[in-house]
Amino acid sequence: MNETSQNHHVVVVGAGFGGLETIRNLKGAGTRITVIDRRNHHLFQPLLYQVATASLATSEIAWPIRHLFANRPEVTTLLGEVVHVDPSRRVLRLENGSEIAYDTLVLATGARHAYFGHDEWEDAAPGLKSLEDATRLRRRILMAFERAERETDPQRRQALLTFVIVGGGPTGVEMAGTIAELAHVTLKRDYRNIDPTKARILLIEAGPRLLPAFPEDLSAYAEKALRSLGVEVVLGEAVSACDADGVIYGGKRLAAATLVWAAGVAASRAAEWLDAPADRAGRILVEQDLTVPGHPEIFAIGDTAFVKAPDGSLVPGIAPAAKQQGRHIAGTIKARLAGKPEARPFRYKHAGNLATIGKKLAVIDFGWLKLRGALAWWIWGIAHIFFLIGVRNRLSVALSWLWIHTTGQRSALLITQGRSHQESRAERATRTDERM
Amino acid sequence: MNETSQNHHVVVVGAGFGGLETIRNLKGAGTRITVIDRRNHHLFQPLLYQVATASLATSEIAWPIRHLFANRPEVTTLLGEVVHVDPSRRVLRLENGSEIAYDTLVLATGARHAYFGHDEWEDAAPGLKSLEDATRLRRRILMAFERAERETDPQRRQALLTFVIVGGGPTGVEMAGTIAELAHVTLKRDYRNIDPTKARILLIEAGPRLLPAFPEDLSAYAEKALRSLGVEVVLGEAVSACDADGVIYGGKRLAAATLVWAAGVAASRAAEWLDAPADRAGRILVEQDLTVPGHPEIFAIGDTAFVKAPDGSLVPGIAPAAKQQGRHIAGTIKARLAGKPEARPFRYKHAGNLATIGKKLAVIDFGWLKLRGALAWWIWGIAHIFFLIGVRNRLSVALSWLWIHTTGQRSALLITQGRSHQESRAERATRTDERM
Repeated sequence: MNETSQNHHVVVVGAGFGGLETIRNLKGAGTRITVIDRRNHHLFQPLLYQVATASLATSEIAWPIRHLFANRPEVTTLLGEVVHVDPSRRVLRLENGSEIAYDTLVLATGARHAYFGHDEWEDAAPGLKSLEDATRLRRRILMAFERAERETDPQRRQALLTFVIVGGGPTGVEMAGTIAELAHVTLKRDYRNIDPTKARILLIEAGPRLLPAFPEDLSAYAEKALRSLGVEVVLGEAVSACDADGVIYGGKRLAAATLVWAAGVAASRAAEWLDAPADRAGRILVEQDLTVPGHPEIFAIGDTAFVKAPDGSLVPGIAPAAKQQGRHIAGTIKARLAGKPEARPFRYKHAGNLATIGKKLAVIDFGWLKLRGALAWWIWGIAHIFFLIGVRNRLSVALSWLWIHTTGQRSALLITQGRSHQESRAERATRTDERM
Repeated sequence: MNETSQNHHVVVVGAGFGGLETIRNLKGAGTRITVIDRRNHHLFQPLLYQVATASLATSEIAWPIRHLFANRPEVTTLLGEVVHVDPSRRVLRLENGSEIAYDTLVLATGARHAYFGHDEWEDAAPGLKSLEDATRLRRRILMAFERAERETDPQRRQALLTFVIVGGGPTGVEMAGTIAELAHVTLKRDYRNIDPTKARILLIEAGPRLLPAFPEDLSAYAEKALRSLGVEVVLGEAVSACDADGVIYGGKRLAAATLVWAAGVAASRAAEWLDAPADRAGRILVEQDLTVPGHPEIFAIGDTAFVKAPDGSLVPGIAPAAKQQGRHIAGTIKARLAGKPEARPFRYKHAGNLATIGKKLAVIDFGWLKLRGALAWWIWGIAHIFFLIGVRNRLSVALSWLWIHTTGQRSALLITQGRSHQESRAERATRTDERM
């Protein structure tokens, strides 16, 4: 590329961990940067399950994107949805038809839930990717208790008090543990007709153990810890149906009003925009330098890209991996602008895996260090507060956790959405199951 | 009433300030109590405008009702909507058809927006009564800036940057001041194509002055303080139309994308349920002891009741008034159970009026003390933190305010609702203006 860096326009699609880290590391590079996201906020997804389970408020884990770059005049933030990329003209198109030209394009568009060909399960078993997903799930969980309190039929009441989490990865383990605490501790004395401590929480994993990315002893520990919180852990049985009445797993039907999908994600549609080669989950099969094959000016990172680690394993879809990739490609872009166009292969360094089990326990696998129990929880908590953006949110989340930890009370037990006048009209018009 | 207090069933409809205070003061009375509300949370309405303007999170000003009474086993909380009362049988009916019998009924159902016969204005100029109203208004305000950033037509851009608040009472003054600060300070450096400091904020009041319930010198002070925050105060001109394009006031049309209704409320439908005598705003014309005429076992309090103060003026629709009434009728119910059935007339004691202007100024009128400026703001802030429920929320709100006060940064600049998959489907189905 022969242009000067002042004229060079980097367009970053997606303001998740990968996109933000790219922009941060382009500071001082002298390029113009445009960041495009469908939402106005960056979301700290690792703590999203705590919004869904009434532990944190939405504003504690989300930041307006343009506010993060208020002091970077070369960065323009656009709220918009990309619908197409034309690499031959180097332009992308937004949903309103407007076109944006780029010199370098970064696709950091993340992932969405995947139902393995059963998209019809989504209404019954929603996943957890956005703030709306989280507040909707919170509403469903709390409404289940409210409806149970008013229900007179014992069978329907039991179905309302049955919560099924599908998928035994970190999100599934975290949701199951927290819902169990919510039911068995937080809400214990709040109802008169039902006993929330009798609520059933099932975690169903098709594989032979929970947390498959962790060593086996930590998986076994997580299972034991979840059972002691009152979670029924079901292993080796696949879910074959999800609907409004419940689930079928291992050939058995279980009546349950609340299902949570934590069994898998697929990449966003970036590969389709480009007609780029992708794996079955839609991740672009990028080159070693994270560029899209045939398009050295287009990078794909994070959940959008299929990348192998040095040991041959797949780079996991976690925040630290996306951030490493963002740093790497920012370095590549800067090197190119400095006249060094040679490919720089990305080498993933795995820092570790963490997962919490309820409000007091966690498992950590740093490779050189394996930890489980209360100390692991504190390390997990401190690490996450450290990675939050801004002093304000760190203080606020620390306060929330300290409060939950010492009193057991959750501050965000709110049922919102779906009850206002406008929402009621929408309800009548759409009759989606969301709006009970 | 000859029954024993153990059998006596008090049903309280509405868990606002009046309803909660009634239940608190019935502690130890030995009655069974059922509280029914359409929502699962009590809302601290005096701070709702701070949620709408991105200063506070929803969970900071709302508490799950049943959690407040977890330690009162005689209190049952029901999430439900009352649709009818049959005083002859002493039962009320919920929206799902179930009936609940009462011995004493307390109607504390609050108010809703009133558009003086122009209900069609509601879509264009929403009011502020619920958490959903607040997050929807927050979304509208922030989306106006986002859309302006993408708009190329100068006239449409100016309309997007024009905010009109209708009604110069405390809510109108508070909304206008806070939106002005949001535009002129908080968002100052966040955009690249627009200059948020050029946003126009108009406060339109049909009467001759702002804050008509305050002394004239405080009204004049509030007007001056708002103007120095950049608010255009329009007095003595009535709004004659509100639509998607803007407003007509004093015969002039003004193009504005965001309208806020703060001009009036009407009582809920409690008078219709009972076919009770009511004033034009739907408030039940209660007896001096706050009972409904002809029904000594039914009380109406707060915004549901039309009550005269000792000086002949109308008791205002503010939290302290509702709480006084709640305490009074709890005393009446206890006296009756103790065999003293004589009527106890309610005498309202006016404590004062408070209103804030932006994040640093306020006006206070305690009668014996009139205050304005920064000290008034601190008194206002401390008083409101005191009246919040629970240590957790007091700490959290204090932290939020301290943060905004010292840094000018607001933590809840979130656009939520209306962008998720489900919401998009609802959008396509309903095409309401809410879901931009």
